[in-house]
Amino acid sequence: MKQKKFILEEKDLPTQWYNIQADMVHKPGLPLNPATRQPLSAEDLSHIFAYECSKQELDQEHAWIDIPEEVQEKYRFYRSTPLVRAYELEKALDTPAHIYFKNESVNPLGSHKINSALPQCYYCKQEGTTNVTTETGAGQWGAALSYAAKVYGLECAVYQVKLTMQQKPYRSLIMRTFGASVEGSPSMSTRAGKDILTKDPTHSGSLGTAISEAIELATTTPNCKYTLGSVLNHVSLHQTVIGLEAEKQMEMAGEYPDKVIACFGGGSNFGGIAFPFMRHNILEGRKTEFIAAEPNSCPKLTRGTFAYDFGDEAGYTPLLPMFTLGHGFKPSNIHAGGLRYHGAGVIVSQLIKDGLMQGVDIPQLETFEAGTLFARTEGIIPAPESCHAIAATIREALKCKEEGTSKVLLFNLSGHGLIDMPSYDSFISGDLCNYTVTDQEIQSYLTDLPK
Amino acid sequence: MKQKKFILEEKDLPTQWYNIQADMVHKPGLPLNPATRQPLSAEDLSHIFAYECSKQELDQEHAWIDIPEEVQEKYRFYRSTPLVRAYELEKALDTPAHIYFKNESVNPLGSHKINSALPQCYYCKQEGTTNVTTETGAGQWGAALSYAAKVYGLECAVYQVKLTMQQKPYRSLIMRTFGASVEGSPSMSTRAGKDILTKDPTHSGSLGTAISEAIELATTTPNCKYTLGSVLNHVSLHQTVIGLEAEKQMEMAGEYPDKVIACFGGGSNFGGIAFPFMRHNILEGRKTEFIAAEPNSCPKLTRGTFAYDFGDEAGYTPLLPMFTLGHGFKPSNIHAGGLRYHGAGVIVSQLIKDGLMQGVDIPQLETFEAGTLFARTEGIIPAPESCHAIAATIREALKCKEEGTSKVLLFNLSGHGLIDMPSYDSFISGDLCNYTVTDQEIQSYLTDLPK
Repeated sequence: MKQKKFILEEKDLPTQWYNIQADMVHKPGLPLNPATRQPLSAEDLSHIFAYECSKQELDQEHAWIDIPEEVQEKYRFYRSTPLVRAYELEKALDTPAHIYFKNESVNPLGSHKINSALPQCYYCKQEGTTNVTTETGAGQWGAALSYAAKVYGLECAVYQVKLTMQQKPYRSLIMRTFGASVEGSPSMSTRAGKDILTKDPTHSGSLGTAISEAIELATTTPNCKYTLGSVLNHVSLHQTVIGLEAEKQMEMAGEYPDKVIACFGGGSNFGGIAFPFMRHNILEGRKTEFIAAEPNSCPKLTRGTFAYDFGDEAGYTPLLPMFTLGHGFKPSNIHAGGLRYHGAGVIVSQLIKDGLMQGVDIPQLETFEAGTLFARTEGIIPAPESCHAIAATIREALKCKEEGTSKVLLFNLSGHGLIDMPSYDSFISGDLCNYTVTDQEIQSYLTDLPK
Repeated sequence: MKQKKFILEEKDLPTQWYNIQADMVHKPGLPLNPATRQPLSAEDLSHIFAYECSKQELDQEHAWIDIPEEVQEKYRFYRSTPLVRAYELEKALDTPAHIYFKNESVNPLGSHKINSALPQCYYCKQEGTTNVTTETGAGQWGAALSYAAKVYGLECAVYQVKLTMQQKPYRSLIMRTFGASVEGSPSMSTRAGKDILTKDPTHSGSLGTAISEAIELATTTPNCKYTLGSVLNHVSLHQTVIGLEAEKQMEMAGEYPDKVIACFGGGSNFGGIAFPFMRHNILEGRKTEFIAAEPNSCPKLTRGTFAYDFGDEAGYTPLLPMFTLGHGFKPSNIHAGGLRYHGAGVIVSQLIKDGLMQGVDIPQLETFEAGTLFARTEGIIPAPESCHAIAATIREALKCKEEGTSKVLLFNLSGHGLIDMPSYDSFISGDLCNYTVTDQEIQSYLTDLPK
């Protein structure tokens, strides 16, 4: 009997998150105060974030961090997600590779984002916060946060990238259904938004602009904390439930991945599936390859510069040492809104420097081709972001076919694409195009790096 | 530890469907040839349907019908679906009732429909058919069939009710992504469609009009079979995997339902969850209540007439003995497109006559109120159809609160509502309204019943 789907029993669900920082030989750099260039403490960070998240952000000591019992209870309501062997996709590709995917698309709100939204809101609630705010790119994070805020009785305000509000109108409706207020970014409701629009009235927004606005709201509203859906260490930490489950599920399947693949925007779904496996590379010398798939029109991993940069467009965040395209980088209007971000997160940036993982950049049309094939074979329409992971996996599977080798490939299906149907329609109608970015364009944004 | 989610191991998945016809004391009536009024044989039905489905349709002997191994394999790819205890909803209602739901929304394509789409396409393929066609209301069935057809390498053409094409544009895009052709019904591409539009050029379509068009296409196209997503006995038969799983999962939860609740359009999701439990009423005298929730603007169960009627608007189908509002009934423009159907299916009609189940009708606003509360508590946005089941469950839960009794309620969450976000938006904005239908209107359609 061909087994396709592997599910964990509740007793086997993770009770701790894995903090890769503790095991890294070269630690990731610390966030700096832009004025003084001094490293920030958890107390400093907690002006913006929940204190517990701020502590986790800087924790380079503890490899395992307890998941609060209350959060474990919420996780149990939907986890584990299935690990699935993609037999039909393998057949369509006629590849000897074994392809597995972790299906985070069946989570509440349709993506992995809920895994961090729940603990972030839990900590806010514990610490007496009444309001949370955030940015959202494609809207997956905003939707997850809207629900998690409702679970813990918090008010929630979301700045959604203006472009994706237009591309994916249903996402704002989802957030409103959960009682959140949603504003398109750049907006005229914050100083950061006004400044951006004054410089460029046609600015379609990016995660960088929306982060600025949300941070401004958080710092000017009493009892309000900012929450982030990716990029930061504590977000990837929460997402390690994905990889920790996948490890046990791969064991059930009797295999171990040769390559672990995920799409890459800020790094949370990548870190979530990759870090638990990567610890075996670091601690036991395993040779698993880790591949982060980014849009070739927003190529910070493959063509960015390693530097201290702001995490947002307006320069409200601490300085972070990371691969960046410059915080003023304006990504093309691709449909993978969750990948339209200029920087890479400090852990992943250090891992790339250390040769522990690699980036690969993929053109938009190839991602939709991959997503459509995946839908037709596996019956799940993937999010445009996840299509990047699928496209990278297909490249590897075809390489196996060419070489006649049977590798075990594991990718993270970070979310479904049901809210993104117009983008599939454009693709099928032949209306989508590839975007590229020239070295010169990239260079022009890098001149703005903070000194 | 509060357990919320119950999942079956693969070895515990059903290997047979349950055919309630065999156990019914009063058998459901047979389909008649409209011209001769003679009962139709499986051979007769197989001009339209796959032969194996035609046999199942008329089988009043075998209580258990083997699920083909190839279909079991496909089922294993996504089943079992979780049985979930809705603790958060219970808390919000402050009810002593225990509320469980079977979550069919995590299936491929987002609803229970795939459970019958797979075997129907499998049988078609086995019998040498190359093309399938169908109607679809909300589009859940059309989407499922498009994927199942792709799995078995069949061409697929779908007639989608015109109203829901406008209300839920993403659904057509989903079907097209799977390679199906989709046409709005009534269309000008069939004689039935033309006739309907000639009589009423503004006709917004219904399941009845779309069925006529699909049957016409099937009977005028070589090697093409018609498939149906509900109403018929063999469709409910395939859906009994829902209830058979739920039975074992309720056992895991240590409970047995006092009331089993589902929304009702043609009856497939209702029959799917209800029939396996109902057999204990029939065979062992259990007293479980079965509640089918229909829109109060399309109230065939609560206000229809028991009569022989056509299953479609144009009168292409056999005559079926059922509760009906008349095959010409034009349902109001409610958002629960899957419930806009005039007739009840012969098994359910007989069960109502025998007092084994009851219908309840619910106004549109109450369904969206229920759906929004469910989303905010359980994190899943339910399909407008499923909102009817939730609303009926909430009524029962509040009754428990009033009476101070703790009943065990089980409902079927037939699908998610992500494609229906504009309807939630209308609801939240206060733009939705209730529709009703007067006795006089109902009477006017019943004068057209076939003599």
